[in-house]
Amino acid sequence: MSNPVRIALDAMGGDHGPSVVIPGAAEALERRANIEFLLFGDEAVLGPLVALHPALKAQSRIIHTDVAVGMDEKPSQALRRTRRASSMWMAIDAVKTGAADVIISAGNTGALMAMSTICLRTMAGIDRPAIAAMWPTLRGRSIVLDVGATIGADAQHLVDLAIMGSAMARIVLDIERPTVGLLNVGVEEIKGIEEVKAAGRILREGNIPSLDYQGFVEGTDLGKGTVDVVVTEGFTGNIALKAAEGTARQLAEVLRTAMGATWLTKLGYLLARQAFRTLKDKMDPRNVNGGVFLGLDGVVIKSHGSADATGYANAIGVGFDMVRHELLDKIRESLAVSDERRLALTADMDARA
Amino acid sequence: MSNPVRIALDAMGGDHGPSVVIPGAAEALERRANIEFLLFGDEAVLGPLVALHPALKAQSRIIHTDVAVGMDEKPSQALRRTRRASSMWMAIDAVKTGAADVIISAGNTGALMAMSTICLRTMAGIDRPAIAAMWPTLRGRSIVLDVGATIGADAQHLVDLAIMGSAMARIVLDIERPTVGLLNVGVEEIKGIEEVKAAGRILREGNIPSLDYQGFVEGTDLGKGTVDVVVTEGFTGNIALKAAEGTARQLAEVLRTAMGATWLTKLGYLLARQAFRTLKDKMDPRNVNGGVFLGLDGVVIKSHGSADATGYANAIGVGFDMVRHELLDKIRESLAVSDERRLALTADMDARA
Repeated sequence: MSNPVRIALDAMGGDHGPSVVIPGAAEALERRANIEFLLFGDEAVLGPLVALHPALKAQSRIIHTDVAVGMDEKPSQALRRTRRASSMWMAIDAVKTGAADVIISAGNTGALMAMSTICLRTMAGIDRPAIAAMWPTLRGRSIVLDVGATIGADAQHLVDLAIMGSAMARIVLDIERPTVGLLNVGVEEIKGIEEVKAAGRILREGNIPSLDYQGFVEGTDLGKGTVDVVVTEGFTGNIALKAAEGTARQLAEVLRTAMGATWLTKLGYLLARQAFRTLKDKMDPRNVNGGVFLGLDGVVIKSHGSADATGYANAIGVGFDMVRHELLDKIRESLAVSDERRLALTADMDARA
Repeated sequence: MSNPVRIALDAMGGDHGPSVVIPGAAEALERRANIEFLLFGDEAVLGPLVALHPALKAQSRIIHTDVAVGMDEKPSQALRRTRRASSMWMAIDAVKTGAADVIISAGNTGALMAMSTICLRTMAGIDRPAIAAMWPTLRGRSIVLDVGATIGADAQHLVDLAIMGSAMARIVLDIERPTVGLLNVGVEEIKGIEEVKAAGRILREGNIPSLDYQGFVEGTDLGKGTVDVVVTEGFTGNIALKAAEGTARQLAEVLRTAMGATWLTKLGYLLARQAFRTLKDKMDPRNVNGGVFLGLDGVVIKSHGSADATGYANAIGVGFDMVRHELLDKIRESLAVSDERRLALTADMDARA
């Protein structure tokens, strides 16, 4: 049996804190036995919760701190106030020191990104981190990045996003050579900003072996699942993700109200409830919980702040898989090959000039 | 009785061309009698179609041309090939010459924008045009702009979008002082690009009387209808709109499949079909058909290319209302007041310096 995956949890993070994190960890352990947990947080709170789950108790260690990052605290303030002391920082630092293989937090996204970047630093060759989200589609799931780590992107950053997203897709979607599209607008003549066009040229001509570049995709392609990996800069990615989430909630709300309107619709709802269950399962945000921070020298997973135990267990599962399938090595390899190609490409262009 | 609104139709535009445009015009005329139509297109095709609708025949005139812009033609090519000659150009030009009050086309969006900008020019004080879309929300409808006319926006352009969108909202939503939000990302510390922040400062301090600035909104606020007017630059706006459209279609598709899965779900569907009708009505893209080109010296309405006659009639209705309620004058007034405020603001800052 292989070594256990050592997972550091920011046990105080999230809208519900330890009351979700601990049962979530227990649920994750039921699914994948080979985990050791480091639980960072208030021992007086965590101890009794962990005691309810004997299997988890046997596989975990609590590291006490009574400092926690507030969900609405500004990242800069959280850093000043809680650096080195908070459950979030200490959990990240466990990855830095090698005590853990991956850190998972449902806490304040901005603070988690700021602390992760400062503590773990970016990978060699990567300037800025990104957040990759899983997106439910008609074909299954796609990976969309960046959904909000960094505002704006030059062509090289977009290419890096394509490479990192593909490495993640190889693990999550189990596809050897994921298809990649650059998110762009549809109107032919004004097709997109210069950076997106330039990134398209590099991806097409670079012919990177770890990914299959398909060209531009539009907003409507996100739900269709036209490609495995959709690349865009963080401002647009964040707004697209939230526009889609909002639309899904809006439709659910309209449908719920309409279904409750008369006794006939209520009866219809009862008879067809299997169909609504299917819809709910397919669109269940818990199934796509676990945003992956990419471009850092360590694996950091962000669970949705409002996730329940099952959702949190899914985020732990994503972290487990990223470690087991060596996300960081896969990214480093792809970056190295891409660099070679880029150098060859440049040399070739120079030779022709 | 007031003068009729004179509406120029690019009768050859759209996926279905005259077979939708003519019945659409007839339907619009049933709802609002006080219209005169100028129909630009192939007389041999249009004549027999118009003859089927005596009321329309009495209120319309066909101006023949056998040149039409292709739906997939590049705007620059369409301009070179069909300038002055195509049904699209001639319909726009009717607004320019004063023969019509508004032009409606379901044709190639890029070509329509390019030809409108060249033929009509931008308004004094506006550098670049925008496309405003109506967005169905839980509260009713909002206006979102720019959804793809222009890539990128400086602070002043975003402020202009707020002013123009508010003028449109006063007409479409019948609200004296519409609420306005700037679309931004949620993470506190990296809150958005400089241009968005600067536009927020101008809108807050400018205190423009024709709109009620509410601050930043996120992607999820679009479906909620948090504000009447959502302002963003064209790249992000286009992708947000299409991501939401794609999500709506995706959910409808999943629901349709799930409802057809067993005899029980099928029966449930039959019983609850009133609820599905409500859902369909509320999310019906025909109800929000009619994108308005803003910032031009003339009123141009873009119908969705795939719209049916009812959808097309709705786009005509939007055009009618824009003329009747003097969209262009409303925008000009608001711009003038905003300019005064801006000058006063600058003078005030200078005085304090």
